[in-house]
Amino acid sequence: MKHFIRENFFPIKNDVNIDYLINLLGEDILSSSVLNNFKVIDISSLSNTRDKSILFLEKEINIEKIKSKDIHVISSSKENLNHYKSISIVKNLDKAYNIITNHLFFHDDYQNMPDEYQYLNGSYISKFSKIDKSCNIGKNCFISRGVEIGKNCIIKNNVVIKNSIIGNSVIISDGSCVGTTGFGFDFNKRGSIHLNPQLGIVIIEDNVHIGSLCTVDRGKIDITLIGKNSMIDNMVHIAHNVIIGKNSCIAAQTGISGSVTIGDNVTIGGQVGFAGHITIGENVIIAAKSGVTKNIKDNSVVAGFPAIDMKEWKKNIIRQKKHGH
Amino acid sequence: MKHFIRENFFPIKNDVNIDYLINLLGEDILSSSVLNNFKVIDISSLSNTRDKSILFLEKEINIEKIKSKDIHVISSSKENLNHYKSISIVKNLDKAYNIITNHLFFHDDYQNMPDEYQYLNGSYISKFSKIDKSCNIGKNCFISRGVEIGKNCIIKNNVVIKNSIIGNSVIISDGSCVGTTGFGFDFNKRGSIHLNPQLGIVIIEDNVHIGSLCTVDRGKIDITLIGKNSMIDNMVHIAHNVIIGKNSCIAAQTGISGSVTIGDNVTIGGQVGFAGHITIGENVIIAAKSGVTKNIKDNSVVAGFPAIDMKEWKKNIIRQKKHGH
Amino acid sequence: MKHFIRENFFPIKNDVNIDYLINLLGEDILSSSVLNNFKVIDISSLSNTRDKSILFLEKEINIEKIKSKDIHVISSSKENLNHYKSISIVKNLDKAYNIITNHLFFHDDYQNMPDEYQYLNGSYISKFSKIDKSCNIGKNCFISRGVEIGKNCIIKNNVVIKNSIIGNSVIISDGSCVGTTGFGFDFNKRGSIHLNPQLGIVIIEDNVHIGSLCTVDRGKIDITLIGKNSMIDNMVHIAHNVIIGKNSCIAAQTGISGSVTIGDNVTIGGQVGFAGHITIGENVIIAAKSGVTKNIKDNSVVAGFPAIDMKEWKKNIIRQKKHGH
Repeated sequence: MKHFIRENFFPIKNDVNIDYLINLLGEDILSSSVLNNFKVIDISSLSNTRDKSILFLEKEINIEKIKSKDIHVISSSKENLNHYKSISIVKNLDKAYNIITNHLFFHDDYQNMPDEYQYLNGSYISKFSKIDKSCNIGKNCFISRGVEIGKNCIIKNNVVIKNSIIGNSVIISDGSCVGTTGFGFDFNKRGSIHLNPQLGIVIIEDNVHIGSLCTVDRGKIDITLIGKNSMIDNMVHIAHNVIIGKNSCIAAQTGISGSVTIGDNVTIGGQVGFAGHITIGENVIIAAKSGVTKNIKDNSVVAGFPAIDMKEWKKNIIRQKKHGH
Repeated sequence: MKHFIRENFFPIKNDVNIDYLINLLGEDILSSSVLNNFKVIDISSLSNTRDKSILFLEKEINIEKIKSKDIHVISSSKENLNHYKSISIVKNLDKAYNIITNHLFFHDDYQNMPDEYQYLNGSYISKFSKIDKSCNIGKNCFISRGVEIGKNCIIKNNVVIKNSIIGNSVIISDGSCVGTTGFGFDFNKRGSIHLNPQLGIVIIEDNVHIGSLCTVDRGKIDITLIGKNSMIDNMVHIAHNVIIGKNSCIAAQTGISGSVTIGDNVTIGGQVGFAGHITIGENVIIAAKSGVTKNIKDNSVVAGFPAIDMKEWKKNIIRQKKHGH
Repeated sequence: MKHFIRENFFPIKNDVNIDYLINLLGEDILSSSVLNNFKVIDISSLSNTRDKSILFLEKEINIEKIKSKDIHVISSSKENLNHYKSISIVKNLDKAYNIITNHLFFHDDYQNMPDEYQYLNGSYISKFSKIDKSCNIGKNCFISRGVEIGKNCIIKNNVVIKNSIIGNSVIISDGSCVGTTGFGFDFNKRGSIHLNPQLGIVIIEDNVHIGSLCTVDRGKIDITLIGKNSMIDNMVHIAHNVIIGKNSCIAAQTGISGSVTIGDNVTIGGQVGFAGHITIGENVIIAAKSGVTKNIKDNSVVAGFPAIDMKEWKKNIIRQKKHGH
């Protein structure tokens, strides 16, 4: 279920070859070597290499699997010249990513995303979406191109769904926004025109429940995933590239930062926060209001900010009380 | 004002007697004794027993007042056999509740909730709602069956109101969702198909103000209540079965967990969280960002996580500072 | 860009002179002296004095610049009798403000705000708004009178925009509500009928990005400002009268309390809270989950609650850990 056809969601704006795209970067190119001037139809990530694509690499890294495909690497690390035959070195990788992907793809943070809607029973539904007839969809919803929704789902009212593939028996409650834009941009050149195009999607597996007024940002290049049977309360924010395992339970007002990975059977209290890019093991319990700053091992029970073993946290509380009297 | 007719919000799906419902549970029934095979039209709770209803009891408890009514008890505690003459003992109470209530009632977490809407001045309004003509209702709202709204209320734009009775001079600001589904489910068998049907309502008394992008979940069996003159800021989450007294003030991004009871004249800062099922007295002040884990007495002023007397909390902060230099 | 014509957003309800308005206050007037019985068309604040206006003053303060304009002062401090020739002293300033401004202006927390809408491409757009043709506006949006939106903006779906002037290349993502009512009311007489009319606007400068499900409350008398190039993540709450500088970055679920001023180039993590009326300098970094209770100097890096220098905070954490083992 984790594969998707990018073009279904982000139509290709311009049919161009590698050479053309490199030319767009102008003086930002420090050096360039093109093995095969293929027509570019996709972008790759470290975990998902795709044929006829560009891979943007920040650090030095040698990926064997890209060598069997038509992939051109763009990197800000000259060390990568040792690894790849089709590669361009650029001054600013964020800028290169933005210029190239904005030229290649339509997306909803740029003008004139092409789509067509039907007004069906009070909601705007893209003609290019696939929604099973067994679904119940409320009023004032917006469902855009490429979205797929499986059987027996309930999409309540005033819900926005974009760039998402949704399984069976999923409930998305009133006012939630799924497939929205992740918070990725050139940190040193802020502003909406420096947004990194977010060209991935959200995958929601069977039987997931999403409460009211939640946001689930789509992946930047790959996916944001909510695993089977997971229960999400109201006002939960799930950032881009987050992977949530099966049978998770996340209470209200918790926020999960970008690229966090959460294992199966995890229970998370309300108002919890996470540092980005960390990994939470399986069967973990995280108390309400925790701030999780590091990876958490399987079967842990943590609390506090920074989150520590719950027994230690309770001891600290008791010690503080003693000192206080 | 605290009474409501469940069928106005959750129409009865099937006309069935006690025997029929017990049969539905099949092998999950351990023992059963039916005093009067009445037609079931309602469900009861510990605090509100209703005639011709089923009462689901987790623990052993002897309630005198049910004996004067046609109430069949379903319990997972065999001890209750000593107390009631019309009773079934089941293996899993959550499962029994789900099977029986899904069979009895339509609700919005199941397919095909029956309702009919008029598109009035830009909003979808159920033909089975009662809204005073003096109300102002904005655009892109959704108001479903059974909802009652009193005089001189202002419902702004993109507001969702379901399963609610609203008094006079109430303001509900843009994007808020009232009467939404509470976060109740079989904790050991997660997923939207294991949601416990939420069959209660929200009651909002006169002169309440609800800010933008708030969620107020309806009660599970009884009500969620926001008392007269209460002021709720933006992005406040109020969970199912919460009771908030009169003249309360709740600042932005605070979340109130399920079944919390809050007295009159309480002032709560922003980003506060509460453990479930606790009681906050009258005239209490709770500082911003507090995490309230226990009952709080009348007239208390608390801060911190876990929330303690504010003077103690301030002493702790000062002591920490001293140690830090 | 910081000036606005109040009447564009809040039409004048009644053409009345100072004497008439003072009469409305009845027995709440303790003393009154009117220099020039002008027709009132505006209200002033300490920082913006406007001709033909009323200025509500809580404390004793002597403002030279009002003496060149037609401004009548209403104050609860008798000391101000020494400073102004056109002045009324009242028992309760909140009450006087509410009575007078509700008589003078239409606004959306009172019945029958006059406006007219076109249903354009799936959204309700006021005939009295000015939106550049280059903008993309999604479905189920609501844009009310007076709103101005510059070039190349993207307003996504289910967005509410009221009382706002928006620059060029601004993105406002799905479900956000901008220009909503601030949380200002008579603290001792709660309830929506005691709301202080919020008669200011929101100004959003060029190239600002606002994520999904955010709220930006308008100023009470003046403005709420989000400076150029600022990046706001999802579910951020920005209260009334907040001033945010240029190039700020605010992560998800942070809440900024009323009248907070934030300098340029500030970076704020997720789930941060602020006390009201404080000032944050330039180039400040505030770690996630901080509670900022005091002014912060330029170039500071702070963390914790109450927020302190991040190095100190980290030392405290390490010390706590040591004690814990």
